[in-house]
Amino acid sequence: MTDFDFKKYWQERLEIVNRALNYYLPEDANGPQILVEAMRYTLFAGGKRLRPLLSIIGYELSGGRDLEGELLPVACGIEMIHTFSLIHDDLPAMDNDDFRRGKPTNHRVFGEAIAILAGDALFSHAFYTIVQSRMPPERLVSVLKEITDAIGLDGMLGGQVADVTGENKPPSEEIVEYIHSRKTGKFIRASLKAGGLAAGAPGDVIDLFHRVGDKIGLTFQIVDDILDEIGEKDKLGKSVGKDRESGKQTYVRVYGLQRAKEKARELAESAISEVEDHFGFQKGRPLIDLIKFIVERNY
Amino acid sequence: MTDFDFKKYWQERLEIVNRALNYYLPEDANGPQILVEAMRYTLFAGGKRLRPLLSIIGYELSGGRDLEGELLPVACGIEMIHTFSLIHDDLPAMDNDDFRRGKPTNHRVFGEAIAILAGDALFSHAFYTIVQSRMPPERLVSVLKEITDAIGLDGMLGGQVADVTGENKPPSEEIVEYIHSRKTGKFIRASLKAGGLAAGAPGDVIDLFHRVGDKIGLTFQIVDDILDEIGEKDKLGKSVGKDRESGKQTYVRVYGLQRAKEKARELAESAISEVEDHFGFQKGRPLIDLIKFIVERNY
Repeated sequence: MTDFDFKKYWQERLEIVNRALNYYLPEDANGPQILVEAMRYTLFAGGKRLRPLLSIIGYELSGGRDLEGELLPVACGIEMIHTFSLIHDDLPAMDNDDFRRGKPTNHRVFGEAIAILAGDALFSHAFYTIVQSRMPPERLVSVLKEITDAIGLDGMLGGQVADVTGENKPPSEEIVEYIHSRKTGKFIRASLKAGGLAAGAPGDVIDLFHRVGDKIGLTFQIVDDILDEIGEKDKLGKSVGKDRESGKQTYVRVYGLQRAKEKARELAESAISEVEDHFGFQKGRPLIDLIKFIVERNY
Repeated sequence: MTDFDFKKYWQERLEIVNRALNYYLPEDANGPQILVEAMRYTLFAGGKRLRPLLSIIGYELSGGRDLEGELLPVACGIEMIHTFSLIHDDLPAMDNDDFRRGKPTNHRVFGEAIAILAGDALFSHAFYTIVQSRMPPERLVSVLKEITDAIGLDGMLGGQVADVTGENKPPSEEIVEYIHSRKTGKFIRASLKAGGLAAGAPGDVIDLFHRVGDKIGLTFQIVDDILDEIGEKDKLGKSVGKDRESGKQTYVRVYGLQRAKEKARELAESAISEVEDHFGFQKGRPLIDLIKFIVERNY
């Protein structure tokens, strides 16, 4: 493990996830051709599969041994939910974005009606896929409880509402913390925890994933805000400075760039040391390196 | 049972469902106030709770004995999914409807962004609510499999896509059968079956519910098409003749009014006789009377 290659580790798992997504939502899936095409368009638009990777790491750290049968349906469902949220966030009535990951957004290609329905269908198909997992039913129910709590009205969707309604209000610590923890944080945390729950991890590991997942989620969002200020459009594949221009509540607007950078670094260090304390450096390496990646990423 | 009063039977269960919906999505639910308000606005806009009622009847016919703990979370989740589909179907990019059940549609009151998110959040909250059921986990998983199959890309949402893309095409038997079975039929069938699955009904009862549910779903949709042709706006609480004007694929357009009425009656009679053969008239009465109501309704 001394020469652990995190890029290779991620790339291998990214390919496993992509193959599984292709299996659970194939080109010839039953349903209207145009719908399947629209769903797959954004699902295979080059995502990094961060949330599925977190669920895989959580599962492997917890000793899970049937990745394909138990965990991949969950990992794929998580990515479908994430993709649904991207399609709806980009809609004209929401952020009205024309590009995502360097490609025209779903509604720009398929029109608004199909884009709304493609999002809905990905959301629905996520649960259809998750319940195909072969894990024991009581674990499956605990995974579903974790995920549905993270994405609902007190999670991702509530955060998106606060994001939309918070535009052009004065920057507020309270609002930005609410948006970040709900819109991004809880679902990132749930992805890690879902892996642990799927493997039947004991309570102290689930608690650890809860705390570490929180820190990863917030770090991710702070870095996102920083990149919106200073990132390069070509690398990000999406518009830059858009949050600032549209008067969004961001961490940088509330705390300033310097404090935001410090905060991200502190959170990442604290998360890494919790992982190392519990699992040791060698075993914890995939999660440690992922946290490092998140805080150091410039795209 | 000789003086079985179906209206009273339904009214009692409708009130049980409404109380449960109020419990699972209270005014002070955690989440942005405006989102909760928008979700509740359409959820409590006077629906007949047909799908929850079907799930309750399926559960009671199968000997289920913990309605509140086992079935109501499922019944409420089913109604939330139905409500989500109504909100999104009414959107400007879809059917662009201004009124639903005599009240302004969700996006007319809350704007398009919140309406999309209120639909999404009801969809999400449906699963959050369903997994709170106290039924044995393996039954819960079977209920979730049934429901997610019924509403996804080969179900309700696929049917809605076919509905939207089928507008202004020549009336086609194939398209109208596809739309009706997917958009409405499968979910109505799944509601009845979910009740049976929740109670642990044996395979022959589930198969019966499958066949009967199919017939109920198709009857419901044919009558809906007939009412769109001949119904009165005041009674329906929504626009009449709109499907015809917008060039929608309807049963009446394909088969003519007379044949549509005959078909609805035939299907209902066949469904009723299957229920009576299996359960007997007395025990089967709630389902028998519901089928009669569906075929005879004029609002």
